Amino acid sequence: MRLRKRPWVKEEIMQYTSYTVVNPENHKGVWHKLFQNNNPIYVELGTGRGRFITSHAQNNPEINYIAIEQKQEVLVQAIRKANHLELSNIKFILGNVNRILDFFGQGEISRIYLNFIDPWPKKRHAKRRLTHQRFLDMYKHILNDNGEIHFKTDNELLFEFSLNELSGQKFRLSNISLNLYRDEHNLAQHIQTEYEEKFINQGKPIYRLEAKKES
Amino acid sequence: MRLRKRPWVKEEIMQYTSYTVVNPENHKGVWHKLFQNNNPIYVELGTGRGRFITSHAQNNPEINYIAIEQKQEVLVQAIRKANHLELSNIKFILGNVNRILDFFGQGEISRIYLNFIDPWPKKRHAKRRLTHQRFLDMYKHILNDNGEIHFKTDNELLFEFSLNELSGQKFRLSNISLNLYRDEHNLAQHIQTEYEEKFINQGKPIYRLEAKKES
Ligand SMILES: C[S@@+](CC[C@H](N)C(=O)[O-])C[C@H]1O[C@@H](n2cnc3c(N)ncnc32)[C@H](O)[C@@H]1O
Ligand SMILES: C[S@@+](CC[C@H](N)C(=O)[O-])C[C@H]1O[C@@H](n2cnc3c(N)ncnc32)[C@H](O)[C@@H]1O
Repeated sequence: MRLRKRPWVKEEIMQYTSYTVVNPENHKGVWHKLFQNNNPIYVELGTGRGRFITSHAQNNPEINYIAIEQKQEVLVQAIRKANHLELSNIKFILGNVNRILDFFGQGEISRIYLNFIDPWPKKRHAKRRLTHQRFLDMYKHILNDNGEIHFKTDNELLFEFSLNELSGQKFRLSNISLNLYRDEHNLAQHIQTEYEEKFINQGKPIYRLEAKKES
Repeated sequence: MRLRKRPWVKEEIMQYTSYTVVNPENHKGVWHKLFQNNNPIYVELGTGRGRFITSHAQNNPEINYIAIEQKQEVLVQAIRKANHLELSNIKFILGNVNRILDFFGQGEISRIYLNFIDPWPKKRHAKRRLTHQRFLDMYKHILNDNGEIHFKTDNELLFEFSLNELSGQKFRLSNISLNLYRDEHNLAQHIQTEYEEKFINQGKPIYRLEAKKES
């Protein structure tokens, strides 16, 4: 379902003052102060409607979560979920992943989640894929020494591309799966995103990998 | 087609004295003497009927090839191909891959080809897969510093397993493909093995990767 632009959405987002971070660049390098603890910080890029990161935040109070999403129409739904659950370990940024080096300091992040990011199937758009080496360089900068990327997609071409990009970039891959739910136990082990649920219902295999930054 | 044991097959293999290496352990560390040159040595493990390695040998006279195959009924067909093409840069070993450390010295091999090796789908047989870390340790020993493994399979589970094993083992992966012939140009770029041709005709995708030994 595509949502039409609604002017009051931005206003609603801004009203969630304990969730929405209006000037993320002001917290670069000092996010732990905003969270008022030194817990590890996990970031999700392209959060969408937010089921994944809000569920994780609920299940893992000892981790701080930051969601980045550029579309206000979906971000507002993610924030509503956090608000409804009264989560205290999650923040939201309405913004573009292009700008993460403005948002985060070197080694500030422990994990990056990429879930069903846009595949940009045309070769000439490869640079826009969030697993392009252009982005991997940024991720390496903001990740700490044992920092990880956890990536899921339904898209075979994007997964193939990402395997090759990550292998070329000093990441150590593990838990690579070409069909995550071949083993049905994984349905309970992993939280399904909104897009993921749709793809599973269509019978599509889900690809997954973890990539650890090499020092 | 399964071939019945035929007693004269072993005899035929032994008659190809310029192709069959009867005591491979005698050449450990000094294969270049047998080939009478210092060209790089590429090994194929589980050669089967030999189309792949004999075609490569024909196309690349500046490389030396060694084929290892345990079943004499198929190995004999590979040797006949080499004999028919009058190749001078290929040798054949009737033997088990388990024994490669007896056959080759440290760093003696530049490339290992694994094509459509037995998938051993049961978990308790994982150790028999030729990409199990038990074998990767051996490959690392016999490969030289920039040595590579080139691997093709039709088997999704084996490919997934191999990706994980190789990533955990200080190999740098590249040219990973989840469907090699999605791009039909690759049919001309790559030589198809006997098994591969069968799988392609069944419409199965072919997986491929290259793994470079890390120093
Ligand atoms: C296909 S949706 C997936 C949403 C969610 N992760 C899920 O799995 O349900 C991709 C999301 O990423 C967002 N997105 C894509 N590129 C982005 C960028 N450069 N910066 C921020 N958000 C982005 C889109 O707005 C969209 O909401
Ligand atoms: C599935 S067939 C593939 C043959 C050929 N590579 C192809 O692609 O057409 C696997 C071959 O590997 C051989 N093989 C399997 N395990 C082996 C081992 N441990 N040592 C030597 N050969 C082995 C088998 O005898 C068989 O011929």
